[in-house]
Amino acid sequence: MASQTKYVYDFAEGNRDMKDLLGGKGANLAEMTNLGLPVPPGFTITSEACKAYLDSGETPSGLAGEIGEHLAALESAMGKRLGDADDPLLVSVRSGAKFSMPGMMETVLNVGLNDESVHGLARQAGAGAETAGGADPAAAERFAWDSYRRLIQMFGKTVCDVPGDEFEHALEGAKKAKGTANDLDLDANDLRALVDAYKTIFVRHTGRDFPQAPREQLDLAINAVFESWNAERAVLYRRQERIPADLGTAVNVVAMVFGNLGPDSGTGVAFTRDPASGHQGIYGDYLANAQGEDVVAGIRNTVPLQDLERLDKTSYDELLGIMARLEEHYKDLCDIEFTIERGKLWMLQTRVGKRTAAAAFVIATQLVDEGLIDLDEALNRVTGVQLAQLMFPRFGEGAEVELLTKGMNASPGAAVGRAVFDSYTAVKWSRSGEKVILVRRETNPDDLDGMIAAQGILTSRGGKTSHAAVVARGMGKTCVCGAEELDVDTKGRKFTGPGGVVVEEGDVISIDGSSGAVYRGEVPVVPSPVVEYFEGQLDPAAEDADELVKAVHRIMSHGDEARRMAVRANADTPEDAERARRFGAQGIGLCRTEHMFLGERRQYVERLILADSDDEREKALAALLPLQREDFVGIFAAMDGLPTTVRLLDPPLHEFLPDITELSVRVAVAEARGEAHENELRLLQAVHRLHEQNPMLGLRGVRLGIVVPGLFAMQVRAIIEAAAERRKAGGDPRVEIMIPLVDAVQELELVREEAERIAHEVCEREGVEVPYLIGTMIELPRAALTAGQIAEAAQFFSFGTNDLTQTTWGFSRDDVEAAFFSAYLERGIFGVSPFETLDRDGVGRLVRIASEEGRATRPDLKLGICGEHGGDPDSVHFFHEVGLDYVSCSPFRVPVARLEAGRAAVQTAGSDSR
Amino acid sequence: MASQTKYVYDFAEGNRDMKDLLGGKGANLAEMTNLGLPVPPGFTITSEACKAYLDSGETPSGLAGEIGEHLAALESAMGKRLGDADDPLLVSVRSGAKFSMPGMMETVLNVGLNDESVHGLARQAGAGAETAGGADPAAAERFAWDSYRRLIQMFGKTVCDVPGDEFEHALEGAKKAKGTANDLDLDANDLRALVDAYKTIFVRHTGRDFPQAPREQLDLAINAVFESWNAERAVLYRRQERIPADLGTAVNVVAMVFGNLGPDSGTGVAFTRDPASGHQGIYGDYLANAQGEDVVAGIRNTVPLQDLERLDKTSYDELLGIMARLEEHYKDLCDIEFTIERGKLWMLQTRVGKRTAAAAFVIATQLVDEGLIDLDEALNRVTGVQLAQLMFPRFGEGAEVELLTKGMNASPGAAVGRAVFDSYTAVKWSRSGEKVILVRRETNPDDLDGMIAAQGILTSRGGKTSHAAVVARGMGKTCVCGAEELDVDTKGRKFTGPGGVVVEEGDVISIDGSSGAVYRGEVPVVPSPVVEYFEGQLDPAAEDADELVKAVHRIMSHGDEARRMAVRANADTPEDAERARRFGAQGIGLCRTEHMFLGERRQYVERLILADSDDEREKALAALLPLQREDFVGIFAAMDGLPTTVRLLDPPLHEFLPDITELSVRVAVAEARGEAHENELRLLQAVHRLHEQNPMLGLRGVRLGIVVPGLFAMQVRAIIEAAAERRKAGGDPRVEIMIPLVDAVQELELVREEAERIAHEVCEREGVEVPYLIGTMIELPRAALTAGQIAEAAQFFSFGTNDLTQTTWGFSRDDVEAAFFSAYLERGIFGVSPFETLDRDGVGRLVRIASEEGRATRPDLKLGICGEHGGDPDSVHFFHEVGLDYVSCSPFRVPVARLEAGRAAVQTAGSDSR
Repeated sequence: MASQTKYVYDFAEGNRDMKDLLGGKGANLAEMTNLGLPVPPGFTITSEACKAYLDSGETPSGLAGEIGEHLAALESAMGKRLGDADDPLLVSVRSGAKFSMPGMMETVLNVGLNDESVHGLARQAGAGAETAGGADPAAAERFAWDSYRRLIQMFGKTVCDVPGDEFEHALEGAKKAKGTANDLDLDANDLRALVDAYKTIFVRHTGRDFPQAPREQLDLAINAVFESWNAERAVLYRRQERIPADLGTAVNVVAMVFGNLGPDSGTGVAFTRDPASGHQGIYGDYLANAQGEDVVAGIRNTVPLQDLERLDKTSYDELLGIMARLEEHYKDLCDIEFTIERGKLWMLQTRVGKRTAAAAFVIATQLVDEGLIDLDEALNRVTGVQLAQLMFPRFGEGAEVELLTKGMNASPGAAVGRAVFDSYTAVKWSRSGEKVILVRRETNPDDLDGMIAAQGILTSRGGKTSHAAVVARGMGKTCVCGAEELDVDTKGRKFTGPGGVVVEEGDVISIDGSSGAVYRGEVPVVPSPVVEYFEGQLDPAAEDADELVKAVHRIMSHGDEARRMAVRANADTPEDAERARRFGAQGIGLCRTEHMFLGERRQYVERLILADSDDEREKALAALLPLQREDFVGIFAAMDGLPTTVRLLDPPLHEFLPDITELSVRVAVAEARGEAHENELRLLQAVHRLHEQNPMLGLRGVRLGIVVPGLFAMQVRAIIEAAAERRKAGGDPRVEIMIPLVDAVQELELVREEAERIAHEVCEREGVEVPYLIGTMIELPRAALTAGQIAEAAQFFSFGTNDLTQTTWGFSRDDVEAAFFSAYLERGIFGVSPFETLDRDGVGRLVRIASEEGRATRPDLKLGICGEHGGDPDSVHFFHEVGLDYVSCSPFRVPVARLEAGRAAVQTAGSDSR
Repeated sequence: MASQTKYVYDFAEGNRDMKDLLGGKGANLAEMTNLGLPVPPGFTITSEACKAYLDSGETPSGLAGEIGEHLAALESAMGKRLGDADDPLLVSVRSGAKFSMPGMMETVLNVGLNDESVHGLARQAGAGAETAGGADPAAAERFAWDSYRRLIQMFGKTVCDVPGDEFEHALEGAKKAKGTANDLDLDANDLRALVDAYKTIFVRHTGRDFPQAPREQLDLAINAVFESWNAERAVLYRRQERIPADLGTAVNVVAMVFGNLGPDSGTGVAFTRDPASGHQGIYGDYLANAQGEDVVAGIRNTVPLQDLERLDKTSYDELLGIMARLEEHYKDLCDIEFTIERGKLWMLQTRVGKRTAAAAFVIATQLVDEGLIDLDEALNRVTGVQLAQLMFPRFGEGAEVELLTKGMNASPGAAVGRAVFDSYTAVKWSRSGEKVILVRRETNPDDLDGMIAAQGILTSRGGKTSHAAVVARGMGKTCVCGAEELDVDTKGRKFTGPGGVVVEEGDVISIDGSSGAVYRGEVPVVPSPVVEYFEGQLDPAAEDADELVKAVHRIMSHGDEARRMAVRANADTPEDAERARRFGAQGIGLCRTEHMFLGERRQYVERLILADSDDEREKALAALLPLQREDFVGIFAAMDGLPTTVRLLDPPLHEFLPDITELSVRVAVAEARGEAHENELRLLQAVHRLHEQNPMLGLRGVRLGIVVPGLFAMQVRAIIEAAAERRKAGGDPRVEIMIPLVDAVQELELVREEAERIAHEVCEREGVEVPYLIGTMIELPRAALTAGQIAEAAQFFSFGTNDLTQTTWGFSRDDVEAAFFSAYLERGIFGVSPFETLDRDGVGRLVRIASEEGRATRPDLKLGICGEHGGDPDSVHFFHEVGLDYVSCSPFRVPVARLEAGRAAVQTAGSDSR
């Protein structure tokens, strides 16, 4: 016989590294078992078994036998048999995938109970109580029937799809008959009757009796867990989170322990240290005489974990010992679930605990100080997402404001403004200088202008993938969505909150996009101390320095040492360049020159566009030259000694002219009124000439440079003259000239030849050497696909991943983000907008092709990226993997990119040495 | 020592397959030499030597020695020494690359002459004349000095860059002094003086004396040929023609023979059969007592080759024998150049001769009949470009029309219409039903509307890459450009032709885009007999069938047998489908459904777009359903038994609404005038809501299908219901449902699930099985890059190479073709528009990736292409190579695609068996 796949692992056979096979829960139960901690005995059925079951539609051969063997071992360990009439072993059946996943079947408790064993359970519970010195046969009887009732309810609902509310109705009916509102008032007889009622419900819906055979219960429950992997919500969640659809889930079968057997029993949760501050200590909650689900249901109030010391010193001391042991073992904050059954402590679950962003930094450095981890590992323990959260301004404390409600934290930040209820008002008020918050039931593409004008957006409907949420995140605008307690009355221009509080148009509200809180009135916004630190306003070495700032400083410094990639900033002005430098930028990766054509300079551009002759065009260019030169002198000074990549003009020329529709209307109305409009008519002709159906795909970038004589030449001259001026003044300008929108090496060759000629000419004339590089954006699929050719003419590539995403996917961010991204996120087509996190399969593949083939042609080709993905954590890791030399992002994202570049380096090193 | 590269080949060492190394001219000279034909002795310096010279900037080591050896052998064969004072050997130095290339140095004759050998040449010429019986010492003297004069002139100009007009001036001066206008009146003394004058010019420009050493002359001439490879015009030509820049040119050094030594000498050109009809016979021209350049200069009139029989029967017979030999050897029509030196025939060049499109087909079948080639080879001898030329309507003969002038044949076809001189008039007249020809000095993007409205375009300036030419070819519109004899007076609304002929606005003219001819008056247009044949109106088996039609039929039939790829048509109506079938289409590769939403149906689309509720939207869809169904019934009937690929709605919805600018103007003007405009205002709001900055990159294709509920469902229902109806009527509909604009497999999965549900429902209801496939367009780079995933959900891929070209290059055809393609073609950035011929490096690479990875996932994945490249000859070969199952193109291009698919198959088979 061929060797049989092993489908079932005893807890003693697994460990925490086996999450792929045993799921997160099973792997950690195994780990605790092997640490010698008191875990109820049990075993895990692997995700491989699940996959085999789902592929074939039947139980894989050998699985039933393996379960039987492990069950026998479990029975022998416990000294009981599953569902035994006299002394039944009961088990719980729980799903446990590699990633925790809403929508999957969670748990069936008390498997093994039937019409006979329910009596045995009652007897044993009574006997146990006697042993423990508190015999109460009635309570034991009640406990057993309540357990049976729960089994039928959970089993019926989750295994056999019986509608849950039928059971609820029956329970309500029983309580009503008894004249009580509390389950606890139902006695053993009531519950026995309820069991009968439940069985009737079960038969009606399934066409069969509630299964009495314990093993059948177990097998059906296991199969139900397998099948829940493909439940609709789970499928959707996986699509959204990009979890592979074929992982499958493991199933844990564990001997039941009961926290509800009396005052000497109980259940609790705990953290091994404070998840908010990271401080060591005792953090947790305990509920005596209860089961885990009672804690969640909130029927009774929990007590602080410290109180357990008074209630059960032995268990308390044991628990503290175990917590210390776990933390030392996992080298991190753990959270745990435990149960005490008649004075005996059982560990039901542990995992590395969640924490706030601030705590993550503080805990990581504390663990270093405690010698549990090193700085590399500390760097691993924090994320750029957490750092970014810490950089948003937050609401201060102490203001007398009213918390109205909480919605979903859809897009972080803190925003204050007057409530407005439509886009029109938002735009009008904001133009007159008012700060506004746009409040809508939900938003749609018509609200776009208002969203742009507002400080933040508040909606009463829709989740984190709603239109409002998606668009706000895309804009980097604060948003709270799905605040369902609010009744938004757009026509009445007001909303009503809980308790009838009314907010009228014009009233000031404050929304916290990081927590989802909505306040009435103005909450003072305080700057982030982390930003103050990056700005150099806080000294992390100071005696009284903030604990968080110290931790951030320490981890950032280590990341800077560790990382291979440089981090640059996208900056167009000396001010931005200076700020970027303070934030740690090591150069400018993208200096856009188009803003230099706006404002009062627009007149020259208009002249350039309207030029009827070479002479007029040259005059317009000559007027722009000194202005451009001045711009560059300032930027080179701010970035002295660091590389500055200047991109030649990119957008289509008509962007510098009025909108065609507005101008057409103006001309037509003037004509209708018999007013003079000759100048406007001339302008309109130019606008018509330059109008493009799809300007994103039109005459821009290098195409402009080739078609409009003298344009790029003027820019190159300004750049080199500025650098020459800086050199003469003793400066150290490091010039990189970047040609945008190149498709073919021939384009680059043409522009490069001209640029080199001009540079040579300027240097000769000025009598100074200006070292410079000439390179190109890789922002079109064809450029990436022919990068091997393009590298012949380029000294560097900078990936323009915004445009590359637009053309690779064939959608323009402006047009489609509002129009259909929310629908796409909701239907699970993307997990995240490809403009936010680089799409590795599509756009990323092009980046990889271009990097490899560019370097094959020119081994010293400098590779960078200057799209917005340069500041996105996940994308930064990808760029590290692909081997880029630097990422460039907005100044504010520079610290995030630094941190993630460091993490990427440490993680790669870690995986290399494995 | 390492083995030395061999740089020089004697003619006897080469053959016609060595074009890479020896160039076209050298390879054919070698071939003739080895056939034992009378070729003047000589040798070829390889293109490898050229490359080595250009790479290092100096003569590669060993080359000088090799030349010396071969020169010595040549001298020994001729019994003369190069430049010998008494009996000089003279040689010509000619370039000869693999591809003939304008801009490269052509020829230096008479190398070896100097102040001494000129006397020897005179003596030898005199002696030769005596031997031949016609001594004339003065003539011999004159011949020698004229030869020397020519050497200095050619050498100075082409080797040393001396301005050619200086020599011309000196020659003019000499003639003036002599009082004549004819070179032949200059005697030996005049020419000796002219040699002195030339030498002075040479010294003034080069700073050195004219080189007297024969070997130095030879070496300098060879290097000049090498360097001419990088002459500006040659570089530009290579860029445009996509000839690799690193091929280099070979150099041929050949012993001089003279056709101008007296009446027993002469020179001529000939074809081995009629290049127009293909008929066997004697076709050529002869000029006695002349050199090749005199024939070109047209100083004297040539005589028909037949006259040579009378002049020199021996040479004539020998020539006819050689021509028969060459044709038998090359198995094709050859053209040749020959010289007779004092009764001795010398072959100077041969190559496979050019011919008209019609002759190509006729000759190919004749060669088959003569047993020279087989049908595979005949298929190889014709091209889709030739077939396409034969399918254009042509001007008939016999009409009394006046040929005005000839311009460049920029875009083929025959167009007749009234001359108009601006775009506005073109549009206005054409709207009122007039056919117009737009006449401009040159066109620019402002003329676009007029070009669309006109039957054809005529310009007086610009070449085949001018704006007019490029845009017209893109539109498939007839164009003659660069008719420089015409004086176009746009303001005066007329043009003046040669001889002062004036054509006023409104006068009828006719232009022939295939020949470049411009006629005054209406030339009757006759349909192509080849099209009549494809339409089934001409029977190729008929006794009196046209020779051309017979040949086309025979070759097409063989191509159909040979080809692996199927050919389908893009057709949206039953009429188009029927025509396509007649043209040989084996199905529909693209049936666009968007036209089915126009005309009177537009009202339902407007209702759909303006719908305020689900109910309204559903009503609009329900109204469209029966109309769509009817469309499909007609198409399935026309394509009964053949596959029909129906593409679901692709364009953005706002294309069905009025233009935003026009509507805004209408609303604003109505408002200014105080007129009612409520309905228009409501429409304007919808237009605003749907307006996109870049509709090409917006909400269209599958995105619409996912965002607009019920839209795709209605279309799928209509398709399946139509197919069910056809099945019930005994038809055989073969349905392929195609989802456009897919980026990610998730999109396709969603649409596919819905479509399968509907198809199942319809089939159940109708009680009939409708087999169908569901597949997708691959028209976005991301789809190509993730094709391996997409193939999981697609049963076929159809490459939409128009959109794929747009997004891969990042330019939209509408916007940029007019704006910068002509500049790009002129600067050599493309050789051909990537919308015309598939860009293999960029777009083609994506097609290859998607084909390979799609098939890796699903080996039976059906692969096709439905972009316009499906009818482009070069692209068809690429699709064959990549392994597509079919190409689909416009009905009219179907024969071209069939032919090229056949050729591709034959060529691949040929190269496989090599």
